Amino acid sequence: MKVNSLKQLYVEELKDVYDAENQIVKALPKLIKVASTPKLREALESHLEQTKGHVQRLEQIFEGLGETAKAKKCDGLRGILEEGEKVISDGEKGPVLDAGLIAGAQRVEHYEMAAYGSLKTWAGQLGDDRAVRLLEETLNEEKAADKKLTEIATSGVNAEASHAEGKKMRANA
Amino acid sequence: MKVNSLKQLYVEELKDVYDAENQIVKALPKLIKVASTPKLREALESHLEQTKGHVQRLEQIFEGLGETAKAKKCDGLRGILEEGEKVISDGEKGPVLDAGLIAGAQRVEHYEMAAYGSLKTWAGQLGDDRAVRLLEETLNEEKAADKKLTEIATSGVNAEASHAEGKKMRANA
Repeated sequence: MKVNSLKQLYVEELKDVYDAENQIVKALPKLIKVASTPKLREALESHLEQTKGHVQRLEQIFEGLGETAKAKKCDGLRGILEEGEKVISDGEKGPVLDAGLIAGAQRVEHYEMAAYGSLKTWAGQLGDDRAVRLLEETLNEEKAADKKLTEIATSGVNAEASHAEGKKMRANA
Repeated sequence: MKVNSLKQLYVEELKDVYDAENQIVKALPKLIKVASTPKLREALESHLEQTKGHVQRLEQIFEGLGETAKAKKCDGLRGILEEGEKVISDGEKGPVLDAGLIAGAQRVEHYEMAAYGSLKTWAGQLGDDRAVRLLEETLNEEKAADKKLTEIATSGVNAEASHAEGKKMRANA
């Protein structure tokens, strides 16, 4: 199908991110199950609840456009989630796996930040002010979730994993 | 292969992003070829040159670790690039395609921002200060490239695509 108008591009992109959010709802419980650090588990649990809200916001936007909410296979996010599954299967519960989970979850957040940023710009250019507000709410939640994960990564989740190795690397330097 | 140490995770992730950067070097010329807006073409051309530098920085980091620079198939970025190819094949040269190209390129930038953010944190925790500096330089260039694309998207590249449609949507509201 040829995409000839910004409206068409916007709807196609909404379908892409609708698939992404639905995939994330399915994937997050797997991450929560293998995460060791309570702070990380809590952050992922709270983001799972938020993500269910993001799905609903997208449904409201589809409704406003007179379109049925429909997912279109989102290859980008699927690739990122495949990488995450590999991290889980190659790892063992503990601080190193937690570090890998955080990195995977931040790739997911960043994918969404990019997608919602474009959607918000287009909704504004198409004059769909209600959608702009809904997309902005989700975008801000994705940014906050990413920031929270950076805090967890830099404040100690990785410390246990890095402690012995850092000393070793410095000694060999 | 089991990943049991942060050092191992760090090296695996370096290989992942090394593949990503090499894929981007191959993909950007295709985007440049179909972009219409001179500003967008220039931004992509300048980012192609930067990306070649990112590959070299990664090679310096591998060298510092006593490892051979090696790529590991990066599913996340490959998925994002597949989406980009679909945007190109579904589109026709013009402002709508440019809007889609910008959205795709920003997904690439965000993938890399997430990856370099994690790598920088781990390099710091492993005491590899030279790598921290190199990773930070690349991270800052990715952030700047993303910001530049947002400026192009919001300042007029999409305006032509949205002008008539926006009026139509507001009239129907």
